[in-house]
Order: sequence, then structure tokens, then C-alpha cells
Amino acid sequence: MQDLDANDITDAVIAQMATTPDPRMREIMEAAVRHLHAFAREVNLTPDEWLKGIAFLTAVGQMCSPIRQEFILLSDVLGLSRLVNVMHDSKGREAAGTETSLLGPFFREAAPKVELGGSIAVASDGPEIMIFGQVRDTEGQGVPHAVIDVWQTDADGLYDLQAHDPSVMDMRGQLRCDAEGRFHFRTLKPLGYSIPMDGPVGEMVRQQDRHGFRPAHIHILVAAPGYRELVTALYFADDAHVDSDTVFGVSKSLVIQESLGLPDAPVPGIPSIRYDFTMSRESEGGGGRVGSDPSRLVPAG
Amino acid sequence: MQDLDANDITDAVIAQMATTPDPRMREIMEAAVRHLHAFAREVNLTPDEWLKGIAFLTAVGQMCSPIRQEFILLSDVLGLSRLVNVMHDSKGREAAGTETSLLGPFFREAAPKVELGGSIAVASDGPEIMIFGQVRDTEGQGVPHAVIDVWQTDADGLYDLQAHDPSVMDMRGQLRCDAEGRFHFRTLKPLGYSIPMDGPVGEMVRQQDRHGFRPAHIHILVAAPGYRELVTALYFADDAHVDSDTVFGVSKSLVIQESLGLPDAPVPGIPSIRYDFTMSRESEGGGGRVGSDPSRLVPAG
Repeated sequence: MQDLDANDITDAVIAQMATTPDPRMREIMEAAVRHLHAFAREVNLTPDEWLKGIAFLTAVGQMCSPIRQEFILLSDVLGLSRLVNVMHDSKGREAAGTETSLLGPFFREAAPKVELGGSIAVASDGPEIMIFGQVRDTEGQGVPHAVIDVWQTDADGLYDLQAHDPSVMDMRGQLRCDAEGRFHFRTLKPLGYSIPMDGPVGEMVRQQDRHGFRPAHIHILVAAPGYRELVTALYFADDAHVDSDTVFGVSKSLVIQESLGLPDAPVPGIPSIRYDFTMSRESEGGGGRVGSDPSRLVPAG
Repeated sequence: MQDLDANDITDAVIAQMATTPDPRMREIMEAAVRHLHAFAREVNLTPDEWLKGIAFLTAVGQMCSPIRQEFILLSDVLGLSRLVNVMHDSKGREAAGTETSLLGPFFREAAPKVELGGSIAVASDGPEIMIFGQVRDTEGQGVPHAVIDVWQTDADGLYDLQAHDPSVMDMRGQLRCDAEGRFHFRTLKPLGYSIPMDGPVGEMVRQQDRHGFRPAHIHILVAAPGYRELVTALYFADDAHVDSDTVFGVSKSLVIQESLGLPDAPVPGIPSIRYDFTMSRESEGGGGRVGSDPSRLVPAG
């Protein structure tokens, strides 16, 4: 007859889950139960606090919709998304690929194609900058005709989906590199922005006295046949929140700053940034997107 | 400049949450982040597995409604509800109060009043049993006129809310003990039942090859002025699942079995159970209900 106390309840749950046929599911759920129970024991969680936790998770789930993924936002502000990213980024980094960053919820398929040297700013105004560089393999050779998706906020800190009706594609575009993997394009300097603060996760961040801001950044997705898709972002060094990103997306190697008079700038007179991307071959393993792609996550109906 | 790897991301999150004004919230969230990250590192959680976890928690939240609390069900099948119960039961147990058990989702206010010796079976048939005993304080003295709420499934394993329309109250009642705290009532022998298997938690339990059953039991809530409310349940020893309750509610001291010919049975000829309840005084501290009370948990709207 079972007679479970606060210590042996954990073993009893694991024993009951030991019938799980899928060994990976068994491993993950066993670890989840051990860590969940260790947490509750460590803080001596009270029935009232347990109830608050249940109510919070319920509210997070009920905030999710086809255009809002509040559980991913929770994962982001708790640093879990970054952690999973970094753990599976490491294989790429051993092969010296560019570091990855969060995909975020604002990627859209079929962004407008932009000629090399063209601008992704269609419906917005602001200080213009130029970004140029080369897509290379891990041996430093250019990757011919690599395709780069770029998306970012406008100079007011809004993505097109926030500033315009959904038919407008702005501040995003798809470039095709030249035969040496070189690219250059014009854009506006983006502005940092707050995560959505009108849901339970925003309320939590507010109760923690966190600012809730992401530093200004430009999202980049690079693809080429035979290479691992590279999902990353470039962060502006002069943003006040570059060292306190609410979702922990910044890496040192991804921090940039525009400047005038770069020797190899393809067009003079515009503040410019040079950034070269390094892609790992598919055979170099690892990877996967961690980020807010609501369409894959919200159950139908 | 932050440059977070898989180890120092945890410290960075805790540092960013250090501004939390409420010290208890800070303590709980710090521990939650440490254990969450330790879990992800231990199992080397992949982006695809992370995504499955996000989708699962989202589905759990979206299953919640005013009459269904799927997150509490998840807490129950992971043993967390039992753990929180046991941790805060211990103060009562030092003072030798009856062990508690889960409240569950089927308690209803204003159950029909039943005279001592009466039956709580109004609309159901099945094998009749009698339960009798005494409500006592921790010194063994009877608690005069203690009020006992009883609720259970019928002989088919269904609560009234499952078997009838909501206007019917069956297999539940409220008794008032006599001046020595003694009580006796008739009921039907309940049947064990499965937790709801039509949601994401049921799907998880199925994927774990667990049976999903709770052993047959009778819920009890005892109240008397000056005493801590006692929420418990009595479990039948002859149920096949008494040692493998899917929500880990059984304690040895709460297991019962009916028998004929008990020497002090108030009515002969009916299989009977004697169970005496011990109540702690409010001054003896501790307690709180952990169980499925959806009305307190689902956000309005």
C-alpha cells in the first residue's frame, strides 16, 4: 500500500510513468517531474501559491490565438528560448557558423524581392543606413546566390503588421547574393520596442519591475542549398537596452554599429555596416528554429 | 556586453528579475527559472521538443473552461497537487489530525441535509453500505455537532453532475453529528473511475500507458467552529487501483473496507465501515485546500 510523503511522492510518479513506451518521452517526463517537485519543495510552495500558478498558466494558455503565442513569450522572458537555442547552436559554432538568435513572431513568408542595392523601406521614413557583406562557408569561401530574408521594425519601433493593414509588406525583403555571396541593401535604422504587455506575461514582467524592451535589431534568415538555414539577428550597440534584452537574444558577436567612411562600402555617404555571415553545411549538423511562429502552435479551433 | 552561453543564461535571467519588489515572488520565480533551465540542460531539450512542449501547454490552457480545469488535472497526474497537499498537511499531522486528500472537481455547495442514519442515495441503486464513527479533537474528545459533507460516485462510477442534469443532487449530503460528534449514514458502494481522457492531459496519460483510473473513494469535508476545515477522502482497499491512483491521492491511513458484524455498528445487517475523524484546532496551524475547484481558476470571459 502506498503511503506517500513529500519525498517519496516523486519516486511514485516516476514509477507510474515507467510504462511509457517512447524512451525519449519517458526521459523528458521523468526529468520534468523531478525538477517540478524539487522546485515546489525548495520554495515550500503553499496551496494558495499553487493556485496562483495554476491561474497564471491558464491565463497564458487562454491568451494564445492564431496571431498570439503567449507561452512562447513566457519561454522568451524566462530565458528558456535562448537556452534551447544556445544548446543547439553549439554544433554550428564548433564549425564557426554565425551565432543564431530568436526567430520572433514577425517573420512572414514571401517578402518582396529586393535588388542588390535597393531599399526595404517602402512605406516608412527615417534615417537611412546601408548593410553590406558576404555570405561565406566555414572555409571562408563565398556561397553563390545565397538568399537573405531581412525583416525589422520601422524607425518608430513597429513591424509592418503593427503599423499597417496586413496587405502591406514593409521593412522586409528578400535579397539574392551575387555569385561570390556578396550583398548590399538600404534600410532605415530600426527602433527597439516593448514585448506585448497586455497579457499575463506582460503583467508578470511589470510585477518584476523589468522594462520589457528589446534593443533595436534587424532579423536575418539566410538560406542556400546544402547549408543549414541560419536564423539570426543583428543588434545595435547604441541602444540603451542592448545589455538588458527582455528575451535575452543578444550575443556579442551579433552587435553592430553603423558608421560613415567604411573603406569597402559599396556606396559612399550613407552610414554603413559590414557584416559577413558564415553558414554551416547540412552535414555539419545541429540547428532548428526556436522562436514565435504562432501558426505552427495554436491548436485548431 | 552580455554574451550568454548555456550556463550563464540562468544567472542573467535571475539578475534581470532581481528588481522584483515582492520578495516571495522573487524567491519563487528565481527557483522556477533555475529548475526550468536545469531540466532543459539535463535532457538537452531540442528545438522540436521545446515546440512540442509549447504546443502541449497551449492546448492544456485552451481546454480550460468554467467547468473544466485541465491545468489542475495536469498538476494532479504529475503528483504536484499531492506534493503541495502533503507539505502543508504536515503541521496538522504533528498534531495528529486526520490526513487530508484532494478536494477534486465535484464538490458542490448546499448539498441536501441528511438525518443521522439516513441515506445519501436519492436517484441511484446498488449495494448499500453504512459508514459510522466520531469526529474528535486531537485530545480524543468528541466535537459536538460537527458538520460533515459527503460526496461520491454512484455504483456506476459517475458523480451526479455526470449522470443527471445539474438540478439533481445525488450521492451527496450534509450530516450534523450529535452532541458527542457521532455520526452514521447509509450510502452505496462507489465505483472507481477514469480521469477525463478527452483532453491533452488524457492524451499524455495514454501515451504513458497509464490506466488513468482513480480507486473508488468517498469524499469527506468536516467543519466545526474553531477547528481547521478537514478535506479528505476514504479509499476502498478492494479496488484494483488502490495502489496506483493516477492522481496519487491515497494514503494508508485513509484506506477502508466494509464488513458485516462490526461490534459497535449502530444498525446490524448492513456491511459497515467505522472511521473516526480527528480535527486540529485553528490554532494548530497549516492547511488549505488543493484540488480542482474550476470556478476559482478560469479567467472571466
